[in-house]
Amino acid sequence: MATNILIGLSGGPSVAINASLAGIMEAAVTSDRIGCIYGSRHGIQGVLHGDVISLEPYCTPRQLQILCQTPAMALGSCRRKLRQEDFPHIEAMFRQFGIGQFYYIGGNDSMDTVLQLDRYFKSRENGVQVIGVPKTIDNDLPITDHTPGFGSAAKYLYHTMSEIIRDSEIYPVKNVVIVEIMGRNSGWLTLAGGLSHFLGNPLPQIIALPETPFDEMDFVSRVCSLLETQNTVICAVSEGIRDKSGEYIGMSAKSGVVDNFGHTYLSGVGKYLEALVMNKIGCKVRSIELNVMQRCSSHLASKTDLEEAREIGRAAVQAGLEGKSGVTLTFQRVSNAPYRVEIGSTDVANIANLAKDVPEEWLDLENPAVQKEIADYLLPLMQGELSPIRDETGLPLYIQMQ
Amino acid sequence: MATNILIGLSGGPSVAINASLAGIMEAAVTSDRIGCIYGSRHGIQGVLHGDVISLEPYCTPRQLQILCQTPAMALGSCRRKLRQEDFPHIEAMFRQFGIGQFYYIGGNDSMDTVLQLDRYFKSRENGVQVIGVPKTIDNDLPITDHTPGFGSAAKYLYHTMSEIIRDSEIYPVKNVVIVEIMGRNSGWLTLAGGLSHFLGNPLPQIIALPETPFDEMDFVSRVCSLLETQNTVICAVSEGIRDKSGEYIGMSAKSGVVDNFGHTYLSGVGKYLEALVMNKIGCKVRSIELNVMQRCSSHLASKTDLEEAREIGRAAVQAGLEGKSGVTLTFQRVSNAPYRVEIGSTDVANIANLAKDVPEEWLDLENPAVQKEIADYLLPLMQGELSPIRDETGLPLYIQMQ
Repeated sequence: MATNILIGLSGGPSVAINASLAGIMEAAVTSDRIGCIYGSRHGIQGVLHGDVISLEPYCTPRQLQILCQTPAMALGSCRRKLRQEDFPHIEAMFRQFGIGQFYYIGGNDSMDTVLQLDRYFKSRENGVQVIGVPKTIDNDLPITDHTPGFGSAAKYLYHTMSEIIRDSEIYPVKNVVIVEIMGRNSGWLTLAGGLSHFLGNPLPQIIALPETPFDEMDFVSRVCSLLETQNTVICAVSEGIRDKSGEYIGMSAKSGVVDNFGHTYLSGVGKYLEALVMNKIGCKVRSIELNVMQRCSSHLASKTDLEEAREIGRAAVQAGLEGKSGVTLTFQRVSNAPYRVEIGSTDVANIANLAKDVPEEWLDLENPAVQKEIADYLLPLMQGELSPIRDETGLPLYIQMQ
Repeated sequence: MATNILIGLSGGPSVAINASLAGIMEAAVTSDRIGCIYGSRHGIQGVLHGDVISLEPYCTPRQLQILCQTPAMALGSCRRKLRQEDFPHIEAMFRQFGIGQFYYIGGNDSMDTVLQLDRYFKSRENGVQVIGVPKTIDNDLPITDHTPGFGSAAKYLYHTMSEIIRDSEIYPVKNVVIVEIMGRNSGWLTLAGGLSHFLGNPLPQIIALPETPFDEMDFVSRVCSLLETQNTVICAVSEGIRDKSGEYIGMSAKSGVVDNFGHTYLSGVGKYLEALVMNKIGCKVRSIELNVMQRCSSHLASKTDLEEAREIGRAAVQAGLEGKSGVTLTFQRVSNAPYRVEIGSTDVANIANLAKDVPEEWLDLENPAVQKEIADYLLPLMQGELSPIRDETGLPLYIQMQ
C-alpha cells in the first residue's frame, strides 16, 4: 500500500535547499509506493499549525527546474526546538494526513528534530519513518564530506573576493579592505574567501578563522608591515573570530556603542576592525559585510552543488523506501580528480547538535601542503554554471508556492 | 602620417570601463592612421609621472575579450583635478611620446580634465586632440541617455534585490530589511534596486532617492503601517538621502558615535535606519550595504552594457580620426522596443562637472505611468549574459597589464 510523505525545511537558507526539496519530490512522484506528497510551511511549525500544502502541482519537470533555481526556501523555514508537548500533536497530524515518511532538510539543529521525532515514533511503534537531509552553507556538519549549499556559497566568496581585490587595487594609495564572512563557529566559508591566496596569489594576505585565536595588536602590526611594501591589504575575516579568552572580537564595542539618540549601534567585526585600522594606522580603510548575499546568490550558484543537492534528495527517498529511519544522508568523497562522491547515510545522532570545525592540521594557512589540500577540497564543489529559465525581464524565474 | 595615441582611465570603477578601453584599442590597432597605442597608469597621474605602457601586447582578440570581462580598471585610476602647473608637463610628455590623440574614460570630474586639456592644447595650437568617453555606474551624466557601467550595476541591483527579498521572507516573523545602495547625489541606482516594485511586485515597498527629502518619522510610521498587514518590509535606500534641510540622514550620528575605545564609528545610512527601526519599532531588522559589489560584480554584467561600452570606445577613435577634440561621446536612445541606441558626441563643456538627477516627473514613484517609464528605461540596459573565458578553477580570466 502506498504511503503519503511530508517534507519540511528548517534553519537558515541557502541556494541549494530547494534543489534537495526538488530531488525528494521527483523521486517520490515516480514511486508507486508513495501516494500524496505534502509540504509543511515553516518546517515543523507548519506541522503543529496544520499549515500543510500539496506539492504535486510543482512536480512537473519545468516546475522542478524552477524550484531548483529559486534561492532561499520555497516552503519557508523556522528555528524551533521541539517540546515534549509537541509530539502528540505531530503524531495526530501525521495520522490525519496518512504520513508514513517525514523528510526534514536542515542543519545540525534541525537534525535534532529528526532525532527526537524518530525516537518518539519508535517508542510509539507507529511505523512512521523520519529522514534527515543535510543543508547548511556553513559546512559544519560531521560525518558528511561537505553539505549541500556550501559549494555555492564558497563559489560566491571566491568569485566576489576576486572582484573586490581588483576593485581595491585601482588607486596608487595605501588602503586596507576588511571583508566579513559568515560562519559564527567554523571557518569553512572564510577558507573559500581566502582561496585566491591558497592558489598562489598574494591577495587576500590575511585570512582569519574562528578556529584560531585572533590578536588585535598582532593584526595591526601585520597590516602595518604589509603596507610597507604594498598598497593594498585585503583581509578575509570570519564574523566569529575570538580572542584567546574566547570572547568575540568587537563584542565589547558592540554592546557599548550608542549614538547621539541613545540608539545602540549594531556592527559586526568588519566595522570594528575598520575602526581599529583607522585609529591605529590612519590609512584609507573599508569594511565589506557580504551579508545574506553569501547564502542567497543563486545567480552565482555552483552547478555541482545544485546537482548534488538534488541527488541527495532523491537518495533520501530511496533510503525511505528501504525502510530506514532516524538517519541523515551524507556525502563521502571518493576522489578529487576526477571529483566523485558517493551518497550514504548515518545515524542522525552522529550529526544532530554536533559541529565540525576546520581540522587543526589545516590551520597552518601559510603551509603550501595545507594550501593545496584546501584548494583540492574546495574547488570541485564550486564548478559549473547554471542556465536558468528566465522571465521576460531577464530575471531567473522563482517558484511561488501558494 | 600616423599619430600615436594615449588612453587613460579616471574616477571610480565599473565592470564596463575596461570594455571601453578595449573598444578604443581595437579600433586604433586596425587604423593605419594610428601608430603606437599607449596607456597611462592611474589616469592623468601616470602622464605626469611618465608611467606609460604600450598597449599593443593586449590587442589580440583573446586579450581584448579578457580585458572586457575584467572588473575595475586595468590601467588603474586616479582622482586628480588638474593644476595650472601640470599643463606644460603634460604637453612635454605628449611631445616625447608623439601623442596626437588623448582618450580619457571617466565621469563628470574626469570630463573636466578633458575640457581643461583641450582648452590648453587649443591655446597652444599644437594639434593634440582630447576626447572623452563617458563612464559611471551612477548614470548621472547629462546629455547621454545613460552611461556605460550603469546597466551592469542596475542588473546587479535588480537581481540581487530579488534574491534578498526571497531570503527575507522565509520566517513567519515581522522583519525589516534596509538595503543601502550607491549614488550619493542621484537615485538612478536606487531606481534599479526598486525595479521589482515598479514591475508590479509588492517588494521592496519603500524606495528612497536623494532627489526626494527623507523624513525619518514618516519612514518609521510607513514601516509600522506596512508591518500591520505583512511580515516583511524591504527598503531600497540611496546612501545619499537627505532631510528637507539638505543634511544627509544619519550624518549627525555618524560624526558623533564613538565606541568604548574612543574610536569613531563609521556607518552609512543603512546602519543608521537599522538602529532607528530597532529603537522605534523593536522588530527584527537587518541592514545590507551592497558596497563595492555594485560596481565590481562582473560575474553579473549586462552583455548589452559591455557591448555598448566597447562600441562607444570604437566610436571615440572614429571621432578622433574625424578630427574632433573637446568632445565626449554620448548615447541617444532611438527606441525601447526593439531597444536601439545611436552614438553621437557633444561638447565636453556640456558634461564636465555637471550632473543629471532622476527627472522630477519620475519622483512620483507610486504612479503606474511613471513605473512603466522607469521599467522601460532600465530593462533594456541590463539584458544578456556573458560567457567569459575561465581559468582552470572556473574563475573568469582577468587581464594583468604589467
